[in-house]
Amino acid sequence: MTTKNSLDAPWIRVLPLGGLGEIGKNMMILETVDDIVVIDAGVLFPEWNMPGIDVVIPDMDYLEENADRVRALLITHGHEDHIGAVPHFLKRVNVPVYAPAMAEALIHEKLRQAKMRDESEVQIIHAGEQHDIGGLKVEWFSVCHSVPDSMGIAIDTPAGVVIHTGDFKIDNAPVIGQPTDLGVLADICQDGALLVMADSTYAEEEGYSPSDREVVENLPDLIGAAKNRIIVSSFASQIARIQIVADACIRHGRKLCILGRSMINNTKIGRDLGHLNIPGDLIITAAEAASLPDDKVLILTTGSQGEPQSGLVRMSRNDHRDITIQDDDTIIMSASTIPGNEVPVNDSINDLVRLGARVITNHQTRTHVPGHARKEELRMLLNATRPKYFVPIHGEYRMLKAHIDLAITTGVKEENAFLLIDGDVLELDANSGEVVDKIQAGHIFVHGLGMWDESGNVVVERRSLQHNGVVTVAFSRDTVDGSLVGRPKIVSAGFVHVADADGLLREAEDALMPVLDQHLKKAIEWGDLETIVRNTVGSFLGRRTKRRPLIITSAIDV
Amino acid sequence: MTTKNSLDAPWIRVLPLGGLGEIGKNMMILETVDDIVVIDAGVLFPEWNMPGIDVVIPDMDYLEENADRVRALLITHGHEDHIGAVPHFLKRVNVPVYAPAMAEALIHEKLRQAKMRDESEVQIIHAGEQHDIGGLKVEWFSVCHSVPDSMGIAIDTPAGVVIHTGDFKIDNAPVIGQPTDLGVLADICQDGALLVMADSTYAEEEGYSPSDREVVENLPDLIGAAKNRIIVSSFASQIARIQIVADACIRHGRKLCILGRSMINNTKIGRDLGHLNIPGDLIITAAEAASLPDDKVLILTTGSQGEPQSGLVRMSRNDHRDITIQDDDTIIMSASTIPGNEVPVNDSINDLVRLGARVITNHQTRTHVPGHARKEELRMLLNATRPKYFVPIHGEYRMLKAHIDLAITTGVKEENAFLLIDGDVLELDANSGEVVDKIQAGHIFVHGLGMWDESGNVVVERRSLQHNGVVTVAFSRDTVDGSLVGRPKIVSAGFVHVADADGLLREAEDALMPVLDQHLKKAIEWGDLETIVRNTVGSFLGRRTKRRPLIITSAIDV
Repeated sequence: MTTKNSLDAPWIRVLPLGGLGEIGKNMMILETVDDIVVIDAGVLFPEWNMPGIDVVIPDMDYLEENADRVRALLITHGHEDHIGAVPHFLKRVNVPVYAPAMAEALIHEKLRQAKMRDESEVQIIHAGEQHDIGGLKVEWFSVCHSVPDSMGIAIDTPAGVVIHTGDFKIDNAPVIGQPTDLGVLADICQDGALLVMADSTYAEEEGYSPSDREVVENLPDLIGAAKNRIIVSSFASQIARIQIVADACIRHGRKLCILGRSMINNTKIGRDLGHLNIPGDLIITAAEAASLPDDKVLILTTGSQGEPQSGLVRMSRNDHRDITIQDDDTIIMSASTIPGNEVPVNDSINDLVRLGARVITNHQTRTHVPGHARKEELRMLLNATRPKYFVPIHGEYRMLKAHIDLAITTGVKEENAFLLIDGDVLELDANSGEVVDKIQAGHIFVHGLGMWDESGNVVVERRSLQHNGVVTVAFSRDTVDGSLVGRPKIVSAGFVHVADADGLLREAEDALMPVLDQHLKKAIEWGDLETIVRNTVGSFLGRRTKRRPLIITSAIDV
Repeated sequence: MTTKNSLDAPWIRVLPLGGLGEIGKNMMILETVDDIVVIDAGVLFPEWNMPGIDVVIPDMDYLEENADRVRALLITHGHEDHIGAVPHFLKRVNVPVYAPAMAEALIHEKLRQAKMRDESEVQIIHAGEQHDIGGLKVEWFSVCHSVPDSMGIAIDTPAGVVIHTGDFKIDNAPVIGQPTDLGVLADICQDGALLVMADSTYAEEEGYSPSDREVVENLPDLIGAAKNRIIVSSFASQIARIQIVADACIRHGRKLCILGRSMINNTKIGRDLGHLNIPGDLIITAAEAASLPDDKVLILTTGSQGEPQSGLVRMSRNDHRDITIQDDDTIIMSASTIPGNEVPVNDSINDLVRLGARVITNHQTRTHVPGHARKEELRMLLNATRPKYFVPIHGEYRMLKAHIDLAITTGVKEENAFLLIDGDVLELDANSGEVVDKIQAGHIFVHGLGMWDESGNVVVERRSLQHNGVVTVAFSRDTVDGSLVGRPKIVSAGFVHVADADGLLREAEDALMPVLDQHLKKAIEWGDLETIVRNTVGSFLGRRTKRRPLIITSAIDV
């Protein structure tokens, strides 16, 4: 790696890692000559072209190579895309983790499941605390976001103050927790920040985001107006939403039945941490709910994103253990649809309507506000911090570009705003900034117990399989002279209709047989033979079906 | 099939066919004791869980079985979901086709490609014409929709007047063609319609839909404001949009370069039919465009839905033959995203921004209005036709349900509003209506030259393949006594990383070998043996990887 100017002034480097469609989303590395700190270690959920993958985590080879300088993992908040890869991270680099209380409770559970609780050190931090980590002074500050205890991080480096906002919005009256603390930020940045890295998710949206207070007004009205049973679905981490629903239950004389492991678990954490104020006798079990009149019950569960194993989606498929959807159930989806989830969400709504329910979404009445700052809020942040350098994070390319354009309108110089791609190494000092290097910044795909990087063929092969199916070619050859023994056998799956397959594949065997026979008589390399089989069978089937299945060849020595 | 009341009063039956998520979308059968007419014959585009399928068409067995009574195919308008299956239809039931001029031109091209032009009879119809078809009087009436020459159909049957709206909205000043003719409709239905079947796509949306005139105002402003090259993407069938863009080119001194086969073809049809009024010298080729200054050129192409082979998506991937996206290109997406296409559309926008373009979508400025009626327009239609019976068509279940609720608010009796599922046979007479039967109403999947119905395993197998990959097991057995010869051979694709596969699969072979050996000694049925192989290898690999690939077994007799 080259260094732009290491002899002149103190420098820092920042390296975003881990996004797929998004950039700088799951992990950010901040580096000085002596120290590395890592901000967040999240997972991504697979995209449509990664069939059969559970989660995707950032490639952490760079951290392992530089493990002697890695001082800590700093967590901003408790969402999966910021904490989901903490166990994987600690397996590679076992350093102290600093996390706000809600995130710590969720990480605790992850480490327990991974049987890593004993060897890991997670320290709870609070807003306003300063910690000396290596040669860096780190201070967390409150931000408002859709999970309690969300924080931004200010890092005092030899080159100047660096601000990482985490995910944030500016809500002047959040239902739980503090507004984003612009006063403290302005104070920390009284001489102007060296660098601000800020959430770009809503950087394309004009104006200010609506306050959670709108949900406080609408949701209880909807709950009050419903005549029979009510089912509310939301994100389990949306603790404030749980409070709003609980308050509405008290006001309208309903008991609250919470279903789903993550919803139950997060309610418990929320109550333990003092975020939730719910009388114990308000909450009932599914069995108790079944014995009450429908208009005395509200069920709170997950499934606002069409997740197949969630409470609401199981109900929509009529295979939930406790709840059967009935005529005149009112279902309130207190969430917006995350881009990419539109199809399963829509399918589940159709299924619920088919079962007789009335479904109210955020499209008809505001039942949800998002947790990300829009343009005017982003401008407020930039005005409070007055950075020399700016790096948009946590967004798709188009959002990062919009955020750069916006930062320039607040006075950041165009040459000081950097649209980084994952793996870009940006080096900054008081005078100038430059992308000095690019590290490997791939993704690790996790499926079951398997993990592999993009160099494996697994995902590519699955894409081919899903579109055209598979054809397998097996044949036997003589162990002594390698000649063909018996007929080759061709079988398929996901390729042609069973009724059509038999004749077609027998003909393909006939076409292959003389070719195999001829080449097996020569001493041919396995790779070359495979290619010949693939070409022969592939072009025969291609001609007949206009399709190109994946072809797998096996030879048996007999 | 039972008939509710065939001895009493004249009856009709309606049978919707062909939708996937939607119902009554692609084909509607109207039947009397003597005659059958079919309204529309469209294709569907495959859903996410139908990997590798080109298009889906309705199962037409019922029509073939009743071919002696099928009198005609009546077309409402020229969209693919209404005309895409006309060649497949005519192969099954060769009857006359009646179609409005624009639809006829598009069908003509389809029949030419299918080499069916000579044996097919397509008659152009105009609004206000009455045709005697069997014992039915059929009259087409103008409706406003997003393709010119859109029509609804009024059918005078022995039981009363039946109205099929086709796809429609009420635009009082469409850019091309006539407003929806509510006057003629009221006239036709002066005694009240027996049955109205109406477009439900926007039945959940309050109010009135905006007029195309808003696009007439915004699009030229955006075109006037852009400094460099402009690329507009739209639907090829949106002929009015082509006119708006051409007019804006004249006003702002740009030449119009039209790219993409369907956009060029539809422009030609639009001009031939007199819908488009474009001076010949406005239109230039890609080569001519390249020789002009950027601010004198506007490129019109397809790709607003993220279709991989469309003009704009090729440009976003930097592999368009004629156009390379450059810094400061302005791209105007004059379309809204059809639900389900969000991910590819978003990917293409990110790619375009990455290449330096500025992308304006319908989200920021209205660059598109949809072609479907909202609640108040649907109420106007029901007020004009005053039907006894009502059947919502062309919508997902939730939309049909919303449309039923709306129809009841205009005076349709609840017991006379029928939410039909594809295949339901609704029988009506002047006194009452009832679903009397259910016919097979499946889907035919088309991929390359292959076609199969849902009973084939192809789609199911592909789903399994895409999630877990495939493992093939091959072994040789003695032709005489059936005993195992040599080692079995196990190979995989899309299952585990190549680096991990070898050892794992050799161990699976070791585990399988004694099991095979034991069972091959007995005279075992092939199906039973396959099950044993699948269970043995499946549970071995499941234990080791927590994944369940599809397992294919082949035996070679040597």
